[in-house]
Amino acid sequence: MSDALKNALANIRIVLCEPHHAGNIGAAARAMKTMGLSRLFLVKPENFPSDEATRRASRASDVLDAAQVCDTLNEALSGVALAVACSARTREMAAPAVDARGAAARLAAVAAVQPVALVFGNETYGLTTAQVNLCQMIATISTDPDYASLNLAAAVQVFAYELRLALLGGAQIETARKLASHDELEGFYAHLENALIECGYLNPQQPKKLMQRLRRLYARAELEQEEVNILRGMVRTLRQPKKSGQS
Amino acid sequence: MSDALKNALANIRIVLCEPHHAGNIGAAARAMKTMGLSRLFLVKPENFPSDEATRRASRASDVLDAAQVCDTLNEALSGVALAVACSARTREMAAPAVDARGAAARLAAVAAVQPVALVFGNETYGLTTAQVNLCQMIATISTDPDYASLNLAAAVQVFAYELRLALLGGAQIETARKLASHDELEGFYAHLENALIECGYLNPQQPKKLMQRLRRLYARAELEQEEVNILRGMVRTLRQPKKSGQS
Repeated sequence: MSDALKNALANIRIVLCEPHHAGNIGAAARAMKTMGLSRLFLVKPENFPSDEATRRASRASDVLDAAQVCDTLNEALSGVALAVACSARTREMAAPAVDARGAAARLAAVAAVQPVALVFGNETYGLTTAQVNLCQMIATISTDPDYASLNLAAAVQVFAYELRLALLGGAQIETARKLASHDELEGFYAHLENALIECGYLNPQQPKKLMQRLRRLYARAELEQEEVNILRGMVRTLRQPKKSGQS
Repeated sequence: MSDALKNALANIRIVLCEPHHAGNIGAAARAMKTMGLSRLFLVKPENFPSDEATRRASRASDVLDAAQVCDTLNEALSGVALAVACSARTREMAAPAVDARGAAARLAAVAAVQPVALVFGNETYGLTTAQVNLCQMIATISTDPDYASLNLAAAVQVFAYELRLALLGGAQIETARKLASHDELEGFYAHLENALIECGYLNPQQPKKLMQRLRRLYARAELEQEEVNILRGMVRTLRQPKKSGQS
């Protein structure tokens, strides 16, 4: 295995949010390992570690042993440059939607140089809107419209498979752009929100979906680190009285 | 769903040879149904029907109920025009080997007019040489060479997914977005530039490449009409002193 492939695989996090069935955690670990993935993050798992997870993991229990248990999705995404929400539902207000193959191509390109994450929701209720809002893209596996109920581990298997093919297919490696990390993006959104409240554009009592719309817009742009700095500088300076000669 | 797609899906048989775990039969039925497949053939299943299979099938028990139990693979392949053996092993003497995507493309093409079959072996020992010899093609899912142990139902899921995409032509999901026109975009850039000069963030004597960077950033986002209005409203309001209650 080439070092480039090894590095890219190590840059891909699989994040399971509030998984209910321990067996699904184990089966997801097995699905990951068959495709060379090893970085499993569990946000508030209902039952972990467990014998059922270990049994279903078969010989992939090393993935379970190394899994990172987190309290929030925010924590699991720390340092991540591109987070993709896996969702079966169509959403009214959301990040751009792509199919699994398109998402894999994009993730593979970024994973060559920076950490990325694929985020899966709970078996019953999926991802919350707040969780989806922390991601820059939504990916959907094409299914029969009358029965879209993929098992969680089966969905992980399909995405892991597509990621492997994308990485082996020599996905366009993105080296030119240094994307902002999850933490930098959240810092920008918090800064912008405060400024919009402070100037009166955003009414915190009736926020409507303004911040969600802005997140969607900037998610599509896949902001670079330096662009986040520019945007924050703009927001800060727009609130100041005119000073000539500053640039 | 078009009649052509319906007919092709009905022409695809999933054949499980001597499956050992009842749970895998149920999970395979579920995997099939998510992709619109319904024709399950079981060659000498160890334990079928069973509660465990029904439980793991979730709401795909109709696929289990309609499953055809056969004594031999030969019987399951009766009337089939193209049979593909799914195998993780490389074989000394065998039919042409293709990857899952290549097999799906071929199967989809034939399934448009004639019955085809995807044949899976037992969880432990796979397909026998005699069984593989009944097939015209061998298909292998690309895996990590150190851990190729896909769960049976997970392998069915990957192939069923590839079949669905092959039948659909792999269409990207498209969402109807009303993009801003050239004039609206230029109006926004002019507005933003004036505000940035007015507040002192942009020095018109030394503009550097700020506007160019911002254009590039927003170009990537492919702004919608309404988003341009929001951005202009933000810029306008950020320059005003605080007025509470406005949103």
